[in-house]
Amino acid sequence: MATPATLRDGDGDGDGAAPPPPVHELIKKKRDGYKLSDRDLASFVDKLVSKQVEDAQIGAMLMAMFLKGLDAQETAALTRHMVDSGDRLDWGEAWRPLLVDKHSTGGVGDKVSLALAPALAACGFKVPMMSGRGLDFTGGTLDKLESIPGFRVVQTVDAMRAALEDPGCFIVGASSRLAPADGELYKRRDVTGTVDSIPLITSSIVSKKVAEGTRALVMDIKVGRAALSKTVEDATELAKSIIAVAGLLDLPTRAVLTRMDVPIGRAVGNALEVDEAIRCMRGEGPRDLEELVCVLGGVLLEMRGAVDSLAAGRERVAATLRDGSALSAFRRMLVKQGVSEEDARRVCEDGSADAVLPRAPHVTAVRAAVDGVVADIEGISIARACQRLGAGRTRSDQSLDLSVGVVLAEGLRVGARLRVGDELMQVHHAQEHLPDDVEALLRGAVDISEQGLPAGSEAAADRVIAII
Amino acid sequence: MATPATLRDGDGDGDGAAPPPPVHELIKKKRDGYKLSDRDLASFVDKLVSKQVEDAQIGAMLMAMFLKGLDAQETAALTRHMVDSGDRLDWGEAWRPLLVDKHSTGGVGDKVSLALAPALAACGFKVPMMSGRGLDFTGGTLDKLESIPGFRVVQTVDAMRAALEDPGCFIVGASSRLAPADGELYKRRDVTGTVDSIPLITSSIVSKKVAEGTRALVMDIKVGRAALSKTVEDATELAKSIIAVAGLLDLPTRAVLTRMDVPIGRAVGNALEVDEAIRCMRGEGPRDLEELVCVLGGVLLEMRGAVDSLAAGRERVAATLRDGSALSAFRRMLVKQGVSEEDARRVCEDGSADAVLPRAPHVTAVRAAVDGVVADIEGISIARACQRLGAGRTRSDQSLDLSVGVVLAEGLRVGARLRVGDELMQVHHAQEHLPDDVEALLRGAVDISEQGLPAGSEAAADRVIAII
Repeated sequence: MATPATLRDGDGDGDGAAPPPPVHELIKKKRDGYKLSDRDLASFVDKLVSKQVEDAQIGAMLMAMFLKGLDAQETAALTRHMVDSGDRLDWGEAWRPLLVDKHSTGGVGDKVSLALAPALAACGFKVPMMSGRGLDFTGGTLDKLESIPGFRVVQTVDAMRAALEDPGCFIVGASSRLAPADGELYKRRDVTGTVDSIPLITSSIVSKKVAEGTRALVMDIKVGRAALSKTVEDATELAKSIIAVAGLLDLPTRAVLTRMDVPIGRAVGNALEVDEAIRCMRGEGPRDLEELVCVLGGVLLEMRGAVDSLAAGRERVAATLRDGSALSAFRRMLVKQGVSEEDARRVCEDGSADAVLPRAPHVTAVRAAVDGVVADIEGISIARACQRLGAGRTRSDQSLDLSVGVVLAEGLRVGARLRVGDELMQVHHAQEHLPDDVEALLRGAVDISEQGLPAGSEAAADRVIAII
Repeated sequence: MATPATLRDGDGDGDGAAPPPPVHELIKKKRDGYKLSDRDLASFVDKLVSKQVEDAQIGAMLMAMFLKGLDAQETAALTRHMVDSGDRLDWGEAWRPLLVDKHSTGGVGDKVSLALAPALAACGFKVPMMSGRGLDFTGGTLDKLESIPGFRVVQTVDAMRAALEDPGCFIVGASSRLAPADGELYKRRDVTGTVDSIPLITSSIVSKKVAEGTRALVMDIKVGRAALSKTVEDATELAKSIIAVAGLLDLPTRAVLTRMDVPIGRAVGNALEVDEAIRCMRGEGPRDLEELVCVLGGVLLEMRGAVDSLAAGRERVAATLRDGSALSAFRRMLVKQGVSEEDARRVCEDGSADAVLPRAPHVTAVRAAVDGVVADIEGISIARACQRLGAGRTRSDQSLDLSVGVVLAEGLRVGARLRVGDELMQVHHAQEHLPDDVEALLRGAVDISEQGLPAGSEAAADRVIAII
């Protein structure tokens, strides 16, 4: 008989509890399209946090995961180990049925969180919202809030608890102690070209939401030319992945797919968006922003059993905008997060925000050069123009000019009829003259058709596409 | 008319000579399966050498290249820019028709270079051989030569030129100033699981060979269980890639596919392999080593027009082994590379090498435990056993015991009939007792079949499979 092959494979380490495979073997396994086991992912995350994975290996693993994918089980295991890699906030038994949060995949002019967190608090919920900064064309909730003097996005756990006590919400930056393994991967995704991966996006979002201690989540998944997901199919796939993985981690989640081509509301730019969010909390619209706040909030109310239908949930949230209770919660949240009582009052009061919020020294109107009908308003071009004015980052270490941005003219919407010289928007800028390239970009963003609109073009006015 | 789309893409940088895309865009391009342009690869290599590429990006790009591939044109462009990233040795017009080199993909007991470089020098050629160290199961020519006291693998360009003058060859380590961009990629390939990529292997080998200044190349592409290429198909693909890319860089190249299951010759281990190479240069075999030296050398002689046929080339090389001219060139090369005249003479002289080369303090015979016919000798297991004895590295920073290793019994070959107690091999080791796990590994490496051999098993005795 031939000598058994087992003696010939060069591995005589015995058959006790074998150590987990080295990182390069895990990379090869994913590279070759095999499934990573729970143990493989535990070992990878553990080594990631203890800095035993070389940067080049992180890049290679991200690319292998991007190209070969992770199934729901692998994504859930990765997410769970990411949560376990750091602190996990626990707001106590009593608040458990009340904890809710919303997360958006990022859009242009997206100030929904600013109004939604206080509105939910005004409905009696607890909203431990951890948010992000703007990068590339997407605005950041934290940047917007920082345009209010004194507002601090870093808070102690005790201060967060006090804000949940009253008014019932906070909006802070995600602590590096929550899901630190996600931090290690996330910060390399942009430079390694591995951002647009459904399992990687899923694990990053869900790990932070589980770690922050929310007990129900609604996702605002943007769809369109100014969104991460370009098509409804892509957005649906991402929504299903997040819902499945969050479910496996005991975080009930629903997703609202919303259109993201035209900017949300009329304002793009940090302080300008705070103004608009406050108008929304006074019940003064704009209509699409209010729709987003009410639908996303309504879904959470329905999930939590606070209402019998989505319609009732929408109405309950809308009431907090009309009766001033959302704005009151917002004002108290500002104070809890470092803004003086006086400044908080003035920011929220009609007409007095100019004394508190930063304002750009120059405002220039951009006007229509032809007669016609508005065929499109390209959010991404407006975002790029605002980025050039200083409102957005191209690198994560860039500082911003929180005062600048764009406010679209009140009647400017797809289908509106314009004449030469009608105002398209007001541009708030720091330079004495609005730079030509920015003006060209903004002018190009408003597509004015001299032939009128193709049939059915106005159907896209509603933001909400589907609820999953 | 609608506003032109060109004004709306958010890119108003003008249409002058645009800067090359940032690295993450190059990564995405390859990630999505697009071809990288010559300009893309020039920019990537340039940034690699000037340390403007983050480690995570190198890992991600390697994995994207591994999974999506590079075609011959991309591989040639990458290789050319790697060459251009550093120094390029030029040995002058007069020697141009004489410059030849051989490169092997690595095997067990592969001491071909030690005999081939001097044999080619004895034929009047110039051999500027840059070689490597052993890693994992493959032995390294530089490690073998360093078992000779005084031998220096680092040499100045002037010293290299002097060695090419007489005896006509040198064997040195590749300088980090040759193809430094390759160095940046190569050192991360192992940890990122991106070793087995034909375009990456091709660009690494060809860039170094072009930079060292050889003008003709023969590749020894090993095929088998103890080789990088497991199948003839894989080896052929690699051979064709190297031949095509080297051709595009004006380096005429041919490839010999050779079998690599059973160790080459009888000796595995650094000083022990020097002994065997010297026996080969005295015309004393072993037969398979001599076959490799003569075929690889013969191919080069034929390529250079020094002979009319491969058979004549083989014979010309074989003559240098029989008449002592190869050994004389080897002895003179040792002296040129730092070995004393006295030590060089004693290493080459029959019976006196023991006074110079390091010898292990213990030698243990491993004997057959059953009667039967040798069905297989597993080179990889013998290499792993030698690695455990200290002859090979598991990490690149490990130091070696150059004295240890294995010498197979003279008659031990596939098809040989054995009786219980017959000697299989002698193990040279540092420990007082040969460790049990090493003995088990070595015993398992010799597959003794009690049923005799299947028909046709002995056909594998020849090393050379094909010449391309």
